[in-house]
Amino acid sequence: MKRFCLTVIVVLWVLVPVVLAADGEAPISDATQECLDCHSEFHPGIVQDWHNSRHSTMTPQNALKADKLKRRMSSKSVPEALQNQAVGCAECHTLRAGAHSDTFEHNGYEIHMVVSPDDCATCHVTEKTQFAKNLMAHAYKNLAENPLYQDLQRTILGESTVEDGKIRFSPANGLTRAEACFYCHGTRLEVTGYETRDTDAGELEFPIINGWPNQGVGRVNLDGSRGACSACHSRHHFSMEMARKPYTCKECHAGPDVPAFKVYSSSKHGNIFSAMNSTWNFTAVPWTIGTDFSAPTCAACHISLLVNPNGEVVNPRTHQMSDRLGWRIFGLIYAHPYPKEPDTTKIRNRAGLSLPTDFDGGFAKDYLIGPEAQKIRRQTMQNTCLNCHSTAWVKSHFVRLDNTIQTSNAKVLTATGLVSRAWESGYAQGPGQQGSPFDEFIERRWSDVWLFHANNVRFVSAMAGGGDYGVFEDGRYPLTNALLDMQSWLETRNMMSTAKKK
Amino acid sequence: MKRFCLTVIVVLWVLVPVVLAADGEAPISDATQECLDCHSEFHPGIVQDWHNSRHSTMTPQNALKADKLKRRMSSKSVPEALQNQAVGCAECHTLRAGAHSDTFEHNGYEIHMVVSPDDCATCHVTEKTQFAKNLMAHAYKNLAENPLYQDLQRTILGESTVEDGKIRFSPANGLTRAEACFYCHGTRLEVTGYETRDTDAGELEFPIINGWPNQGVGRVNLDGSRGACSACHSRHHFSMEMARKPYTCKECHAGPDVPAFKVYSSSKHGNIFSAMNSTWNFTAVPWTIGTDFSAPTCAACHISLLVNPNGEVVNPRTHQMSDRLGWRIFGLIYAHPYPKEPDTTKIRNRAGLSLPTDFDGGFAKDYLIGPEAQKIRRQTMQNTCLNCHSTAWVKSHFVRLDNTIQTSNAKVLTATGLVSRAWESGYAQGPGQQGSPFDEFIERRWSDVWLFHANNVRFVSAMAGGGDYGVFEDGRYPLTNALLDMQSWLETRNMMSTAKKK
Amino acid sequence: MKRFCLTVIVVLWVLVPVVLAADGEAPISDATQECLDCHSEFHPGIVQDWHNSRHSTMTPQNALKADKLKRRMSSKSVPEALQNQAVGCAECHTLRAGAHSDTFEHNGYEIHMVVSPDDCATCHVTEKTQFAKNLMAHAYKNLAENPLYQDLQRTILGESTVEDGKIRFSPANGLTRAEACFYCHGTRLEVTGYETRDTDAGELEFPIINGWPNQGVGRVNLDGSRGACSACHSRHHFSMEMARKPYTCKECHAGPDVPAFKVYSSSKHGNIFSAMNSTWNFTAVPWTIGTDFSAPTCAACHISLLVNPNGEVVNPRTHQMSDRLGWRIFGLIYAHPYPKEPDTTKIRNRAGLSLPTDFDGGFAKDYLIGPEAQKIRRQTMQNTCLNCHSTAWVKSHFVRLDNTIQTSNAKVLTATGLVSRAWESGYAQGPGQQGSPFDEFIERRWSDVWLFHANNVRFVSAMAGGGDYGVFEDGRYPLTNALLDMQSWLETRNMMSTAKKK
Repeated sequence: MKRFCLTVIVVLWVLVPVVLAADGEAPISDATQECLDCHSEFHPGIVQDWHNSRHSTMTPQNALKADKLKRRMSSKSVPEALQNQAVGCAECHTLRAGAHSDTFEHNGYEIHMVVSPDDCATCHVTEKTQFAKNLMAHAYKNLAENPLYQDLQRTILGESTVEDGKIRFSPANGLTRAEACFYCHGTRLEVTGYETRDTDAGELEFPIINGWPNQGVGRVNLDGSRGACSACHSRHHFSMEMARKPYTCKECHAGPDVPAFKVYSSSKHGNIFSAMNSTWNFTAVPWTIGTDFSAPTCAACHISLLVNPNGEVVNPRTHQMSDRLGWRIFGLIYAHPYPKEPDTTKIRNRAGLSLPTDFDGGFAKDYLIGPEAQKIRRQTMQNTCLNCHSTAWVKSHFVRLDNTIQTSNAKVLTATGLVSRAWESGYAQGPGQQGSPFDEFIERRWSDVWLFHANNVRFVSAMAGGGDYGVFEDGRYPLTNALLDMQSWLETRNMMSTAKKK
Repeated sequence: MKRFCLTVIVVLWVLVPVVLAADGEAPISDATQECLDCHSEFHPGIVQDWHNSRHSTMTPQNALKADKLKRRMSSKSVPEALQNQAVGCAECHTLRAGAHSDTFEHNGYEIHMVVSPDDCATCHVTEKTQFAKNLMAHAYKNLAENPLYQDLQRTILGESTVEDGKIRFSPANGLTRAEACFYCHGTRLEVTGYETRDTDAGELEFPIINGWPNQGVGRVNLDGSRGACSACHSRHHFSMEMARKPYTCKECHAGPDVPAFKVYSSSKHGNIFSAMNSTWNFTAVPWTIGTDFSAPTCAACHISLLVNPNGEVVNPRTHQMSDRLGWRIFGLIYAHPYPKEPDTTKIRNRAGLSLPTDFDGGFAKDYLIGPEAQKIRRQTMQNTCLNCHSTAWVKSHFVRLDNTIQTSNAKVLTATGLVSRAWESGYAQGPGQQGSPFDEFIERRWSDVWLFHANNVRFVSAMAGGGDYGVFEDGRYPLTNALLDMQSWLETRNMMSTAKKK
Repeated sequence: MKRFCLTVIVVLWVLVPVVLAADGEAPISDATQECLDCHSEFHPGIVQDWHNSRHSTMTPQNALKADKLKRRMSSKSVPEALQNQAVGCAECHTLRAGAHSDTFEHNGYEIHMVVSPDDCATCHVTEKTQFAKNLMAHAYKNLAENPLYQDLQRTILGESTVEDGKIRFSPANGLTRAEACFYCHGTRLEVTGYETRDTDAGELEFPIINGWPNQGVGRVNLDGSRGACSACHSRHHFSMEMARKPYTCKECHAGPDVPAFKVYSSSKHGNIFSAMNSTWNFTAVPWTIGTDFSAPTCAACHISLLVNPNGEVVNPRTHQMSDRLGWRIFGLIYAHPYPKEPDTTKIRNRAGLSLPTDFDGGFAKDYLIGPEAQKIRRQTMQNTCLNCHSTAWVKSHFVRLDNTIQTSNAKVLTATGLVSRAWESGYAQGPGQQGSPFDEFIERRWSDVWLFHANNVRFVSAMAGGGDYGVFEDGRYPLTNALLDMQSWLETRNMMSTAKKK
C-alpha cells in the first residue's frame, strides 16, 4: 500500500501544480482591488484573463528570486512599492502618471488607458531596450515618413475617381489608415479632448484618443515611447504560450508580402508543430530543445532563450530579432543586407530615394550591414539549427538561400526592365515622368513581382517551406505569370503604337 | 494520509466525471435497439458517433429538469412517448412519418432518411423558429428564384462553348449545381422513385432522392420545411463543441466572397482561439465569458447564450443570427442595411431587379431595415464586446466599420462606372444591351471588386481582422489592382476604337 | 478506503501507461550508445526525438510478437543481430554499408548519412514494396525525364531575360531545382567528394552529397533505391500520429495544383477533424472507425489499416495508395483513368508526347487502367465510406464525381481551343510553331485552367469539399474568369490584326 501511495504521490505531483498554479499567492494591492471591484462587473472578460495570468500570481520580488536562466524579469530591481504584490490593474495603469498625456482622474486615481513599453520596462527593461532596436519599433515612422511608401499607401487605400480615363487616388482618411497599414505598423496616438459618459458607475470623464484602439508594433504612445508589447503578448493574460505559437505572428505576417505563417504551416517544421504541439511545453523558461518541443516555432528561431537538454544555452533570448538576420528578404524592391539602423527613413539609394536598393538592384551599401556582420548573424541563427541538423545539412540550406536571393533578385530586375520600358515608351507615367510608380496596371504587375512573388520565393527558401508552396501556391509560377503578363501588355501597346505611326 | 487522500479525492472529482459522462443512463427504446442491432454492423461509424453524443445519454424529460439558463432544450414539453428514453435512431427517423414524402417501410418501421428542422423542433422549437427567420433558411429560394443570381450561376457553373469568338454558357446540370452553389445554399430534395437493393440484410426497397446527400442551410426538405440543422450540428454527434468552433462555419464561409474564417484566423481573436482553445470549455451551458473561453468564436458573437462570471446574461442564445447585424456587409453589389425579410426574392431596386442596391449605390430602402433597427442590432452585438473592451474601444471600432462601409462602397462605385463605360461604348454587352453582366472579361473584373475584394475589406473591418489581411492578402491592394486592370482594358479598347475611326 | 483505492488504481491504470510508455525497456546496442554519447551533445534535438519514438523502446523481436492486426512490422523476420535491441542510430545508419555510396568511416564505424527505403525494408518490407508501385516513388524520373515537364519547369524556375520584346527562360540551376519542384519530387543524390571539417570532436571527414538535404517522395538514393520514408514519417520520431494527421500531406499538397489539404480543411470531414481530433487516438493499430476517430484524415482513406468496432477489417493497410484511385483527377492536361505503371515516362499519347491525354481530351488508353480496374478501386475506397454513409449517399457522391470529371474536362477543352486559336493565328508560338506551350501570357492562362482551377473543382468533388471552396475560393469562378481572359486577349489581337490588314 505504501509503495502504491508513493506512486500516487508521484503522479499527482505532476498533476496538482497545474491546478495550484492558478491559485497563486501574490497579495493584491488596495488600489488594484478597487479597480477589480468595479471592473469585475464591467469588464469581466479581461479581468478573468488577468486572473489566469502570471501577473496575478507572482510578485516582482519573488520573480527576481528565480535562477538566472529561469528568470522572466530582466530588470534587476523594481520600485519598492511594487515589489511585494501582484502586478495588477493599478500597478500598470497608474505607472509613470506624469509621462502619459492620457492620464486622467478616475475615482481618485491618476490612471492612463494606454500602457506603453516604457511602463513595461519597469520589470522588463532588457526586452524594451532590445525591441527598440528593431525595424518594428520604428514601423510607424518608417512608413508614414517615407514619401515613396506614402505614395504606395495612397494608391492602395485612397479614394478613387476616374479623370480623363485614368484612375486618380486621393489620400485615405485617418480611419482607413488606422485599420489598414497602421493596424500592424502602429498608429500615432493623440489625446484630442475629453468626454463625459454616463456609465453604470455614474458620470465619468474620459480622454478621447485619436488612433485608439491599436496594438501595432510601432505605435507611437502617449508618453512618446514606440511599440506595443500587447501586439504579441495579448492583454491581459500576456501569455508566453500564445507568444510562442505562430498564430501571434500571423496577425501581421499573413499576406503575400510577408508570408511567414503560410510558409511555416506548409513546411516540415510547421507540420511537426501542427501535429504534435499539444504535447509540448510552451511555458518553460528556459525553453529546452527536444524536451519541451521538437520543432521550432517563430519564437524559437527568432526570440526565445533556448537551451539543450544538458541545460547549456543554445541561443539567448532576444527581442532585437534582427540579431540573427543577415539578409532582409522582404524586397524593397530587391532583397538586401539588413539595414544598420532601425530608422529606415534615413536610407538613401543612388537616386536619393529612401530605398535600400536601387531600381537596377544595387544596394544602398552605406546604410546596410556588411558581409562580416551578415556572417555573425547567420552563425547565431545556425546555433539553433545545428541542434537537430548536421553541419552539411545546415550549410547546404544556407547555400540554397543565397542562391535564391540572387535568382529572385534577378527576376525582379527583369520585371523592373519591363516597367521601365513602359515608362520610357510613354505607355505609363513613372517617377521620370512625374507620375507615381504605383497607380497604373503595369506598375501593379511590377509590384506584384517584388512585393509578393519574389518575397514568397525567398520566405520559402529561408524557412525550408516546401516545394509546392514556393512554386505553385505562391512563388515561381505566379512570378513568371506576372512577367509574361507585363510582356504581353507591352507588346499590345507596342503594336498599337506601331499601327498608329503608320 | 487522510489529508493526502482528500487531495486525491478532490483531484479525482475533477477527472472522474469526464469518464462517467460518457456512460449515461438513458434507456434505449426497443425500436432504436432494433436499428442499432443491424446498423452497428452496417454503419458503425455513425452509430459510434451517436453513442458519443448527448442524445444517447439524456432523456428529454431529464433535459427539461435543468435550470433555465442551463437548458439545452427549448420546447416546454415533448410527446409522452419520447420523454423517458434516449433520443435514438427511431426517435428521429420515424418522427412525423406522414409529413415526409421519403417515408418508407423498413423492417416493420415507417422511417424517413432525411430528418428535418421540423423534426428537430419537437425538442428544439425555439431554434427552429428563429432559424427560419434567417436569410440562410431561405438560401435555396433566394438563389434559385432570383433571375440575376441565376444568370451569375449559369456563367460560373454552366457548360462553355466558343461561338463567334465569344464564350457562351449554357445552364449547368443538376449534379453540378448540387455540389457547387447548392452545397451551401441547400438543394431541393425530391423523391423520384424507389429502388430495390440487395443488402447484407436481404433485399430491401429504398426511396431515390434527387438532391441527396445535402446539408445546405436552406435545403428544401421532403416535409416542405427549410434548412438542415446538420449543416452546423454534424450528424450524429450533434456536438456543441463542434458548432462553437469556427471550423464549422468555414465549410461555407471559406472563400473570398464571405471570408469570415480566413479573416477570423488572422485576427487577434482568432490568434487567441488558435493558441489557447485547448484549455477552454466548449460544452458549458450557459457559456461564461472569461471562465469558459477568453476570446470569441463565431458562435460567441452570433449565436450562443453568454453570461458573465457573475452569472448575468450578456446576450441570449439566438438562431436568428441577423438580430445583431445592422449592416449586410456582403455586397450585392454594395454593402447595405440588413433586409427586413429573409426572403430576398421580394426585394426590388429602382431598376426593378431583385437586388438590395441600385447600380449607382442607392439602397432599396423599402426592403431594408432603418437606422433605428440598425442601432438596436449594433447594441445587441456590443453587449458582448463590452465584456472585454472599454466603451471608447468599442465605439471607435464601429466608427471605423461605418467608414469602411462607405469607402468600400465608393470603390465599388468606381468599378461600376468603369464597367458601365464598357457597356456604353459597346465594348461589352451589359443588361442595357440584352447581355449578361457576368460573362465577359471586364464584367468579371467588376464582380471581383464587389464580390471579393470589397467584401474582404469589410469583413476585416467588422472583425478587427488585421491590417495585412485587409490590405495585401485580400482587400485594398487587389481591389485597386482590379480597378487599374479595368481601366487599362478600357484604354486599350478606346485606343483601338480611335485608331479604327481614323 | 479500499474501494477508494480501487478507484484510484483504476484511474491510474489509465494514466500511468502514458508515462511508462516513454520509459521502454529495449536494450541499446553498444554501437548506438557510442553514437548517443556524442550526438546527445551535438544534435540533442533529434536524439531526444528518437528517445520519444517507438524505435527507442521496442525491439524487433518484441514487435513481431504482436497479433497480426496489431503488428507494425511487416517483415516476417529480421537479421539476428538486430532482433533484441532498440532500433537506434547505428542499427539504421550502418545497415547495408556496402550498398550506399555515401558510406564513410566515422569513429570506427562504416556509416551512411542517407537512410533509404531499402534500409527501412529490413523491418518494413511490405510498405517498401507497395510504395515502390506508386507514381510517387517515380516522382524524380517522371518529372526529370519527361521533356514536356522539363519545358514547363524551365519556364517556371529558369533565369529570365528579355530578347526582342519576348521573355526567354534558360534552365534553372541545381540549387533552385532542389528547393523547388524536386523538394517534393525528390532529388537525385550524388557523392561529389569528401571534406574534412574541424568539429567539436576533432577533425573528421564527411562525404559531400549533391542534392542533400532532401526528403522528396521520389528521391533517388545513394543505394539506387527510390523514395524517402521520412517524407511522411518525419525523422527521428517516425510518429504514426504525425503521418496520420493531414498536415504531413500538406507539405507537398499545399498549392492549387494538388489542393488536397485546403479542400480537406474546408470539408465536413476536415471540420470534424479540426474540431474534435484532440480526443482521438492516432496511435492505435489497427485504427478503429468510430472508436479511435470520427472522421477520416488523408491516411484513413488512402493508407491505414481500418477496422470497425467489431474488429472486422474494413480496408487493409496499403502504401500503394493508387489501389483505391480509379481516376487520376490531377489533369495532365485532362483528368484520366489512373496510369497502369508508376513510370509515366513510358506513356505516349496520339501525338507521341509523354502525356496521358491528347490535347483534345482523348485518353492514352493503352497506358491507363480500364473500367473494370476503375470499378474495383472505387469499391475499395467505398468500403471505408460505407461505415458512416448509406449506400444511396455514397452512390450519389460518386455519380457527382463522374459528372465533375466530365464537365471539368469539357471546360479544359474550351481553354485548349482558345490557346490553339492563338497558336494557329500566330499570336503565340506553340508546339506546332517550334515554341514552348508554357512561356507566353495566353499559354499561362491555359495552364492555370487545367493545372489549377479544373484540379480544384475535381478535388472538391472527390472530397466533398464544400461549395464555396469549389466555386469562389478556387474552382469554377476563377476557371471561367481565365476563359474570359483568354477570350478577351484573343479578341484584342484579332482586332489589331484586322486593323493592320486594312
